[in-house]
Amino acid sequence: MKAEIIAVGSELLLGQISNTNARYISSQLAELGIDVYYHTVVGDNPARLVESIQIAENRADLIIFTGGLGPTKDDLTKEAISSHLGKRLVMDDHALFYIEDFFKRMNRVMTENNKKQALVLEGCTVLENKHGMAPGMLLSTDKHAYILLPGPPKEMEPMFQFEAKPLLQKLLHKETIIMSQVIRFYGIGEAELETKVQDLLEKQTNPTLAPLASDGEVTLRLTAKSATEDDAWQKIEELQAEILDRVGKYVYGYNNDSLASKLREILIDHSLTISAAESMTAGLFQSELAAVPGMGEALVGGMITYTEQIKVEQLGVDKQMIASKGVVSSECAEEMATRIKEKFGTHIGIGITGAAGPDGHGGQPPGTVWIGIALDHMAPVSYKLSLSGMRNTNRLRAVKFTIHYLIRLLREQKELKI
Amino acid sequence: MKAEIIAVGSELLLGQISNTNARYISSQLAELGIDVYYHTVVGDNPARLVESIQIAENRADLIIFTGGLGPTKDDLTKEAISSHLGKRLVMDDHALFYIEDFFKRMNRVMTENNKKQALVLEGCTVLENKHGMAPGMLLSTDKHAYILLPGPPKEMEPMFQFEAKPLLQKLLHKETIIMSQVIRFYGIGEAELETKVQDLLEKQTNPTLAPLASDGEVTLRLTAKSATEDDAWQKIEELQAEILDRVGKYVYGYNNDSLASKLREILIDHSLTISAAESMTAGLFQSELAAVPGMGEALVGGMITYTEQIKVEQLGVDKQMIASKGVVSSECAEEMATRIKEKFGTHIGIGITGAAGPDGHGGQPPGTVWIGIALDHMAPVSYKLSLSGMRNTNRLRAVKFTIHYLIRLLREQKELKI
Repeated sequence: MKAEIIAVGSELLLGQISNTNARYISSQLAELGIDVYYHTVVGDNPARLVESIQIAENRADLIIFTGGLGPTKDDLTKEAISSHLGKRLVMDDHALFYIEDFFKRMNRVMTENNKKQALVLEGCTVLENKHGMAPGMLLSTDKHAYILLPGPPKEMEPMFQFEAKPLLQKLLHKETIIMSQVIRFYGIGEAELETKVQDLLEKQTNPTLAPLASDGEVTLRLTAKSATEDDAWQKIEELQAEILDRVGKYVYGYNNDSLASKLREILIDHSLTISAAESMTAGLFQSELAAVPGMGEALVGGMITYTEQIKVEQLGVDKQMIASKGVVSSECAEEMATRIKEKFGTHIGIGITGAAGPDGHGGQPPGTVWIGIALDHMAPVSYKLSLSGMRNTNRLRAVKFTIHYLIRLLREQKELKI
Repeated sequence: MKAEIIAVGSELLLGQISNTNARYISSQLAELGIDVYYHTVVGDNPARLVESIQIAENRADLIIFTGGLGPTKDDLTKEAISSHLGKRLVMDDHALFYIEDFFKRMNRVMTENNKKQALVLEGCTVLENKHGMAPGMLLSTDKHAYILLPGPPKEMEPMFQFEAKPLLQKLLHKETIIMSQVIRFYGIGEAELETKVQDLLEKQTNPTLAPLASDGEVTLRLTAKSATEDDAWQKIEELQAEILDRVGKYVYGYNNDSLASKLREILIDHSLTISAAESMTAGLFQSELAAVPGMGEALVGGMITYTEQIKVEQLGVDKQMIASKGVVSSECAEEMATRIKEKFGTHIGIGITGAAGPDGHGGQPPGTVWIGIALDHMAPVSYKLSLSGMRNTNRLRAVKFTIHYLIRLLREQKELKI
């Protein structure tokens, strides 16, 4: 099966946003073993959209559209397909009810044009939108399958994953089982990782091996095809064992794990509680932890001590120490960690202080970060980062590193006497 | 002039990377007043690449390629164009010298395949690559102009900016000035906004008017063309005045403003300090504020009170009140705001408490959020949100709403007696 992805929206052609939807759908189709030969982006123009559909029909079996399902008159994807295929648009009562209910719950007035979102192509399978209003569609004709998805990634991704993908799997009528596993790394660069698995990247065809880097993390995706699940899984396990043998010490998790979700597991498993005092990151560390459901069992809370005065008066950091060592120092990070741990009565205390940029802070150049960790039964420890990114990249990197650093430290406490 | 951007690379079709190049080039072309009608992505396959070129030639005057100029046998963009147009590839001595010199400087051995990078289309203008090895090209024929750029954004962007753009400006022979202005809205949905400016969206051609929605915000972009900067700006101002007249109360800023940067302006202008006590958002509110450089002049710090015990013992919230009203309540939000304001000695105190989801909290369903604000010389106020998104969408929406709510409240205090 050959696929083409058509993204509809003038904002893409004006360069206001990137076509991240095409990337997401392509990676999902790759897992299903469906070849994507083209991506097309076309504006909110019915004639040009229809021409794009005609071109796509000549070179693909499956055409996936994103965007143009909303309430405004610029949204015309289903209208163009309707006129091109000669299929009527009909009101879907379930979708209409959901849209009306959405406005009720938000306490907002529903304008008439919102109803348009509940119109669907006659004879299609409706794909429910659990995170927005416009439903998606799957329509099959003799020669082609058409999938229509909304444009906002927050609506499109779950709709593809939970509504469209299972239908595609059925459509494929394939006996081949495709399984994949993502190995997540932290603390190793993409180039270095690739060098260490170069021979595997070159010779591996089943499972295939694909590296990807983002936000200081690197992943390797292993994808195996086989007649049975057991065999596909065995293929993955064999290759994974080889990879772990070489670069296992940088692995922090698998698949949907995040650094924060791995930390939560460790904290919950050992009934550990945590608090943090944040200066430069101003709450981002605790917010990243709280992004994981159920973190409340471990995260007690903490303080944001943006000014020196608050560090001293509210957290109880020693004023003399700051005067001699500065707020961006090993000593200050460790004392922040120790004070918050004592004050909030937790097993673990974290202190983060630094200069996010663009300016320096506390006599240190921008990008300097000190991370302090206080645990029971051991002296506090600290670690210095010298980051070179922009302000908010530095803040996020500091938070990710802190989580990683804490995970490693906790794993090293073999008996976890903390 | 109509343009199409063709990105070449199987990694794009496999979903390993996003086509950010198309976004960059599109935004640059928009500034030049060149209309982009299509983006195409095609893999490292000569036959399909040539087909894409033929399609593009039927619908565009200017075709810009990115990717496929490197040394490996997968890199075949210029080879495909060469065979399609019947133009020979010739060695460019300047580029070859630069590539040889590059390897010398890096102290690396140059393999023979690297020489291929110095081959260029006969009769083209060579675009120098200051950040990599493969040069770019501009080739003009009777009917079309072709620009070939490398794939890595770090090489492509400066090459476009400093080499291709000046040549395009010459090619355009145009005196037209293009200016644009983005108006930023909060608290109004995309559909509702469009309904209110529907006639302008329909009849406006200069300036053009383009709406865009993301993360609870909506923007309108006004783009004017004229012979002079003054006249283009006047056109924008006239349309803007009409828009402000209709929906001005939802406008929070312009162009690169964010809700947090607007709030910072107001706080600094009136020498106001702020602190926050966060439960459900766990630091995200303060972290969003701190994302703006220079926020340290206003943001003092705050507390993350994730558990009831910390709310009571550390922040000083009344235990009896929680027992009777619950932690997710108007009373609790207002008391959190009042306590943090007193404790941290700021002009403004914020309290955020709620159930982010997926589960309910404090007897309230997921998505329920109470936001409290305490200011000097007035009783604390609070606002309830009922959100329907996923956990982290709800957390971000709550933060954005809080900033917006505070901005409106501060603007309403006409004399700012706070």
